[in-house]
Amino acid sequence: MAQKFYSEQNLKFTLYDVHGIESLLEYDYFRDYSRESFDMILDTAKKIATDFMFPITSEMDKNPPEYTGDTIKVHAAVRPFMKTSGDGGWINALFPYEEGGQQMPVSIYNACQFIFAAANYSISVYPSLTHGAVDLIYSYGSEEIKEKYATNMVAGKWQGTMALTEPEAGSSLSDVKTTAVPTEHGYYLINGQKTFISAGDHDGVDNIVHLMLARIKGAPAGVKGLSLFVVPKMRINDKGKLEFNDVSCAGCYHKMGYRGAPIAQLAMGENDDCRGYLVGEANRGLAYMFQMMNGARIHVGAGAAGISSAAYHAALEYCRERLQGRRITEKDPTKPQIPIIEHADVKRMLAAQRGIIEGSLSLIVYAGKLLDLTLVAQGEEKERCELLLDFLTPIVKSYPSEMGLFSTSLAIQCLGGYGYSDEFPVEQYMRDVRIHPIHEGTTGIQAMDLLGRKVVMKSGRAMSIYLEEVGKTVGAAKGIAELAPYADKLKRALDLLGEVTASLVGIAMKGETDRFLADATLYLELSEIICVAWQWLAQGIAAGTALGAASESDRDFLEGKIYVMRYFFEYDLPRIEGLRARLMNAADGLTVSMRPEHFTD
Amino acid sequence: MAQKFYSEQNLKFTLYDVHGIESLLEYDYFRDYSRESFDMILDTAKKIATDFMFPITSEMDKNPPEYTGDTIKVHAAVRPFMKTSGDGGWINALFPYEEGGQQMPVSIYNACQFIFAAANYSISVYPSLTHGAVDLIYSYGSEEIKEKYATNMVAGKWQGTMALTEPEAGSSLSDVKTTAVPTEHGYYLINGQKTFISAGDHDGVDNIVHLMLARIKGAPAGVKGLSLFVVPKMRINDKGKLEFNDVSCAGCYHKMGYRGAPIAQLAMGENDDCRGYLVGEANRGLAYMFQMMNGARIHVGAGAAGISSAAYHAALEYCRERLQGRRITEKDPTKPQIPIIEHADVKRMLAAQRGIIEGSLSLIVYAGKLLDLTLVAQGEEKERCELLLDFLTPIVKSYPSEMGLFSTSLAIQCLGGYGYSDEFPVEQYMRDVRIHPIHEGTTGIQAMDLLGRKVVMKSGRAMSIYLEEVGKTVGAAKGIAELAPYADKLKRALDLLGEVTASLVGIAMKGETDRFLADATLYLELSEIICVAWQWLAQGIAAGTALGAASESDRDFLEGKIYVMRYFFEYDLPRIEGLRARLMNAADGLTVSMRPEHFTD
Repeated sequence: MAQKFYSEQNLKFTLYDVHGIESLLEYDYFRDYSRESFDMILDTAKKIATDFMFPITSEMDKNPPEYTGDTIKVHAAVRPFMKTSGDGGWINALFPYEEGGQQMPVSIYNACQFIFAAANYSISVYPSLTHGAVDLIYSYGSEEIKEKYATNMVAGKWQGTMALTEPEAGSSLSDVKTTAVPTEHGYYLINGQKTFISAGDHDGVDNIVHLMLARIKGAPAGVKGLSLFVVPKMRINDKGKLEFNDVSCAGCYHKMGYRGAPIAQLAMGENDDCRGYLVGEANRGLAYMFQMMNGARIHVGAGAAGISSAAYHAALEYCRERLQGRRITEKDPTKPQIPIIEHADVKRMLAAQRGIIEGSLSLIVYAGKLLDLTLVAQGEEKERCELLLDFLTPIVKSYPSEMGLFSTSLAIQCLGGYGYSDEFPVEQYMRDVRIHPIHEGTTGIQAMDLLGRKVVMKSGRAMSIYLEEVGKTVGAAKGIAELAPYADKLKRALDLLGEVTASLVGIAMKGETDRFLADATLYLELSEIICVAWQWLAQGIAAGTALGAASESDRDFLEGKIYVMRYFFEYDLPRIEGLRARLMNAADGLTVSMRPEHFTD
Repeated sequence: MAQKFYSEQNLKFTLYDVHGIESLLEYDYFRDYSRESFDMILDTAKKIATDFMFPITSEMDKNPPEYTGDTIKVHAAVRPFMKTSGDGGWINALFPYEEGGQQMPVSIYNACQFIFAAANYSISVYPSLTHGAVDLIYSYGSEEIKEKYATNMVAGKWQGTMALTEPEAGSSLSDVKTTAVPTEHGYYLINGQKTFISAGDHDGVDNIVHLMLARIKGAPAGVKGLSLFVVPKMRINDKGKLEFNDVSCAGCYHKMGYRGAPIAQLAMGENDDCRGYLVGEANRGLAYMFQMMNGARIHVGAGAAGISSAAYHAALEYCRERLQGRRITEKDPTKPQIPIIEHADVKRMLAAQRGIIEGSLSLIVYAGKLLDLTLVAQGEEKERCELLLDFLTPIVKSYPSEMGLFSTSLAIQCLGGYGYSDEFPVEQYMRDVRIHPIHEGTTGIQAMDLLGRKVVMKSGRAMSIYLEEVGKTVGAAKGIAELAPYADKLKRALDLLGEVTASLVGIAMKGETDRFLADATLYLELSEIICVAWQWLAQGIAAGTALGAASESDRDFLEGKIYVMRYFFEYDLPRIEGLRARLMNAADGLTVSMRPEHFTD
């Protein structure tokens, strides 16, 4: 069975050689870090992942959470893992010193999240969701809330959640119906239902603290009337004791994958005694949530890439060991069979997986670095990073998520019938990764965000910055003989993106919003491929640079890296031609003009 | 929950309007059939599927077969279903009258298999595997074997299997190691192991009859030394009684999907008492198997298309009922939410599924018709049909299988979080359909078959015939104003296919076999898209013709059909551009030149 679930060498190559994460050390905010401490953090993550998380991945899948009528019973490892995460500083890692945090760069933190997701995605979400909830409290919550609730959350004693979705309000958050009625005691009385809440209730912690969207009585309709509340399952009463806060767990979903994490249904205020504590200002809830969204969405990308990485390494091990068939030119059936990794079609499937995983990882690290820079950079650089990050977020979320299905499916294909059997790990990875195009905003939502908002915002300034950055990499690669052909390919791809974007924006300018956005998902796909090709060119430059002084074993890695770069440009990048062909015809409004009756039979 | 799993209207449209299946009635072999009897058969299939098969689909998934140490315990419905299938004439349907069969056209039979697969793929395979095994016996077996074994198989009392795969011989059948030692009693003593044998042992029948490949002692190495045997689990002794034939079930696989059917491991001859009965001539086993392969592979395509159809109809029902969001141009959040089927991106996902499912179904029916014609046509027409069928088989097998994953994943996406939950049926369909790119020859094997064998055989004659047939449809469509643009698109696609094929064959002519075949999977994908575009153009012609005299409700169906045709040409066909770009560079041998060490980390 597979023991390796990610490539440490590739991760460090991506952090240091491709994205020069050490440059962050120049900023005072990161003054206490060094290359050595980064490596120690990565080593610690590897150790937790290898010793604790990875060995129970299959077990957690086979013994999913069960609703007990009161809470949800989860795997016994959740409690010690939450404690380890709290004690080890994984929940507070990103917070500033003054909040008791460690000011860890997001790029390093996300690299660790990638390791954790590769080891065991399901268990990795308990602390990371808690981190996200605390982040909101630290950013907008009162000192009292911080002290009463956040303290136990960063310690890993209590679970944090993001409670947005309701039965009638999934992608359409403007339809959130949960109500909050102010009281004279300062708190609000919450009433409503939430659904699909990750880690929304379970017995691996002593309390659950929901960061919940609700509508204050009399607030405007739509998203402008949503406020953010802390709604604990158990509240702290005047005597400092925990008492039930009328948040009931109504059940949990049984899912095709991602089965180690419970997804709960919640009912608040069945006894009119559910207290919510306003976070920040009234009616600004969605804005607060969105401020955290970039980080959360990058995190989903890292999760998907991590799962795909684990599937790839399982497939790689199998392909090295499995003997089957002979070279195509070998007709003598008495000759010994060869490892299937020697078949071109198998190498193609492995290279395709690497193209997706390592391309995703590079983008994830880059996005993490941008997040870091938004904290420490000043003036125009800060604004550039913010806009670039906003632009890239739907891509960083969606590309690993959508392609993760394809990548894990290829891993299954490498194993043939064994891959379809649950005695090998790859089928679980395909089930696990399928959640990612759904949660934290579906691919369709990301696509609307990219084309309908990010491309056009500030008169296209975010996109201009993006194109400039890609252009810099193209320019650098042009000067390297072996990379110049790929720089040209990427340059042509940028031209194509410009052509398609102009054509679509032209539709928007005519006021045909529905036609403008009807093929947004294809536009997202087009953008993803080009963006990841960019990341591959950057990796190619870094690999070429490192090859000069490389040891023999590093040479294999670096040459392999350049091969996979070429693979991406030869096999994946050309997909943009087909997308272009459709998108240039988007004005025909084909799907817009289809009526529901056309799907009668 | 979904109650509909296929479109009866579309199935009949495909059979009668698109492919004119009634033209088979002109042949004497089908003299006893009529349009009315075809419809009755389809109605009967629908009734069995609706009343018996569909209601237990989820139940069979949740209660998979379990190995008992002796046999495999399967769902209690298997036994009555096998009996129904035998009594109802579903196992012998395709056989000639003189074998007790019904001479049913394969095109109609496969249409029924599509219905069955849509209702419950797992249970559908028990009788159809039995049919395939009997087919081999009827074609090549002795009268004694027919009488002793086939009789109980067609009655649904005994299970038939195809036993090819071994632990060390999956895709590489030349490595089959199971031995057969002749005895003076006429039978052979069989010794070896088989694995991944579908329905290879279970308690839903009284006996299992394996059609097994084994190597007679002293036979040549490789595929030329394989012979075909009947190897029953229980043999009939001289007294006409059943006695154990030393075929032990060693276990069954637990699979990600397709969980209603047991996939067994078998051990033959552990007590040196496993008797095998030679079928046909020695050393011709693989040739016999391959003669049945076209039918079996079309059947896999039908299975994949059926599963995707069920997922689509579940998604369609959800999209009609689920209210979420408003029109893109509606900014007032107090307006009621709309059914999600009114969102363009949702219509896109539904149209994409139909493009795959209805395109696949059309191809499957067409392939069935070709199989029918190979039976009844004469001379050159017969040869044309045979060659065309040989050419199309890898496409008919692989397109629905590979795209089925994509299609069922889109169905999940339509349902969002609910789609990922096992309270809705779609996640099972995605798991179920994933088997199809693996069994009956992986996609990689199909690709080598298409490019390495079918394209070049008889100096490209099969491909020429194919291009002629597509050209006829193009010609017909050119004369219809609304279809002419699509005829032009298909014509250009054919030119592109010709260009790519010539380029690849050029590599082969230089003797660079490995580079010629390295991207065969991409060539298969290219061929699939163009072939299915052809089927869509044929559907467009038929829909246009029928529109003239259509009733109001038929108009919706026919107009929807033309929309989906346009969708396929606008969104799917352009994918060939990206494939062309890579395939025209295949001479670079990118994956051929990668070494295993390039995958070191």
